[in-house]
Amino acid sequence: MANSSDQRSLGTQPVRWHGDSLELLDQRLLPTEEHWITAEGASAVAQCITDMVVRGAPAIGISAAYGVALAARHAGGSENWQVEVRQSIEQLAKSRPTAVNLFWALQRMEKVFLACSELDEAVERLAAEAVLIHKEDIAANLAMADHALDVMSPQQAIGVLTHCNTGALATGGYGTALGVIRRLHERNLLKKVYADETRPWLQGSRLTAWELSRDEIPVTLNADGAAAAILASGKVNWVVVGADRITANGDVANKIGTYSLAVLARHHNVGFMVVAPSSTVDMTLLEGAQIPIEEREGTEIREIRGIPLAPAGVEVFNPVFDVTPANLIDAIVTEKGAVLKPDLAGMKALFA
Amino acid sequence: MANSSDQRSLGTQPVRWHGDSLELLDQRLLPTEEHWITAEGASAVAQCITDMVVRGAPAIGISAAYGVALAARHAGGSENWQVEVRQSIEQLAKSRPTAVNLFWALQRMEKVFLACSELDEAVERLAAEAVLIHKEDIAANLAMADHALDVMSPQQAIGVLTHCNTGALATGGYGTALGVIRRLHERNLLKKVYADETRPWLQGSRLTAWELSRDEIPVTLNADGAAAAILASGKVNWVVVGADRITANGDVANKIGTYSLAVLARHHNVGFMVVAPSSTVDMTLLEGAQIPIEEREGTEIREIRGIPLAPAGVEVFNPVFDVTPANLIDAIVTEKGAVLKPDLAGMKALFA
Repeated sequence: MANSSDQRSLGTQPVRWHGDSLELLDQRLLPTEEHWITAEGASAVAQCITDMVVRGAPAIGISAAYGVALAARHAGGSENWQVEVRQSIEQLAKSRPTAVNLFWALQRMEKVFLACSELDEAVERLAAEAVLIHKEDIAANLAMADHALDVMSPQQAIGVLTHCNTGALATGGYGTALGVIRRLHERNLLKKVYADETRPWLQGSRLTAWELSRDEIPVTLNADGAAAAILASGKVNWVVVGADRITANGDVANKIGTYSLAVLARHHNVGFMVVAPSSTVDMTLLEGAQIPIEEREGTEIREIRGIPLAPAGVEVFNPVFDVTPANLIDAIVTEKGAVLKPDLAGMKALFA
Repeated sequence: MANSSDQRSLGTQPVRWHGDSLELLDQRLLPTEEHWITAEGASAVAQCITDMVVRGAPAIGISAAYGVALAARHAGGSENWQVEVRQSIEQLAKSRPTAVNLFWALQRMEKVFLACSELDEAVERLAAEAVLIHKEDIAANLAMADHALDVMSPQQAIGVLTHCNTGALATGGYGTALGVIRRLHERNLLKKVYADETRPWLQGSRLTAWELSRDEIPVTLNADGAAAAILASGKVNWVVVGADRITANGDVANKIGTYSLAVLARHHNVGFMVVAPSSTVDMTLLEGAQIPIEEREGTEIREIRGIPLAPAGVEVFNPVFDVTPANLIDAIVTEKGAVLKPDLAGMKALFA
């Protein structure tokens, strides 16, 4: 799905389209095993999303789009093909209830579906739309990297710290925040990336370190609690992270631990940049306090791969996201451009 | 070893003295298994310290003191008892090279040893001195809790967040920072303790959660990265931590992640208190920058109990401690009293 005019590496793309099936890299098994799962129908794609074979908001949206294309492809000669495709869209929509990108991608697919009266036409046009969503995602990531480097305008190689995984693995390819890191590396402007291991899911250890090592981008892994000491050392110029949702005033919901980094970056006079596609911006919400924060099972903290780390019954507070207020953010970067020192006026200027 | 005039619970004491042997709770196996190891000689005690059966600076010092007592006890009728005891002191000193409390305790034992000319006398007086060091540690912890509550002077039940393990398990009993939490609980002044899991060793999950659950003190475990969201929620009034070393200007070296909490506490207008015995204060060092920060093996981040979490060869930054500058600390509390808003003058007034 690479932009053919662009020769740069897009990293390990987690979604491979074969016309009549979809291959997904099983991210649950990384970094120890590289196993691809072939999904031949929409149900299998939905199951892969639910089971977190594929994760990362853009990668989920892309996979769901291909799932709709597969639904039409395998409706075969059925007279009920429209019923089948509609049921698949509904099934895919339920696969991860809070993923904004998933609904966005499915709405695009549904619009194309509704415009088709013949199955042959639907097979062709739905596949083309899914491929387009995929291509557009990569193009958006490349554009974000352009805008981010304009904001950073580094005069020499810099150090960056990141959190969670926002790389090729989380997207159609290249990555959002990790795409910015790739671009710095391509331009010989990257000294080093520090990657938070990102408890509790360890996306930093399992995915970011794997992806960057594989692409020979210099990465150093650290416990989340070591980030403050790293920022104090002066070795980091920018903290660069992704976003799950951005509100109209520029508040950002992202993986738990992001807000901590924003406070630490400000304290150490280090830049703090959020990089995400514009589909992440939700102008219907005025501020971060309106974003419901999902809490997950305590077992994610009490155990790791079934091994108990804490007393069995101990109470756990395990929020998935935290909210970083706009006033701690130096730049929100999307494919449409950057909002510096974000506030309602600046956000409206770009996203209204 | 409880202060007999004090009926309060001291928590699970990790060191049990039996006159001719020492029992140590194997903290490596917590929380899943409660296993005690019996050490019958100084060599066995030294091995337990090296292997981290016992951890926490005060508990290490106490164990080493008992180790010297055991060396005399088991020198038996040997004419070379003085050589044997001296060798044991040297062996114990090598068991954990950076532990300040270890040297402090061994120096006290050596002084008694040098004052004894007969073995019988040494057996008796060394045992008595070890018991005294143990009792004094508990008394110091109880005194710290008094001073800490004077500083906090809570008018109603408060929330506290802590890091690592500073409880009975790390000391002769009761604990330092966790002793303050015990005291708040005894006085019905504790709403809840949030305990950072404390990567990479997970002392929060494995030890603090275990110890507090056992003593029915309400504890909620969280990923280190969730501390900022917890402080932002307003549910925490004080962050209370221990210390590994405190310099003359009031800078504090403590478990990695402590400095992050200090920055976050200041940002959220939450109190930040350090609780440690005065033996932790090193007036020969002017400031925290002079404290060498030990880095440990990357495997502690890359693996957990032998299970790979990250690519095998990936570079890791794994510092054991970080340094919190005095200007982020509201109070340093020792058994000698509290230094508020610590600086060189305030530290000298109490520790010169």
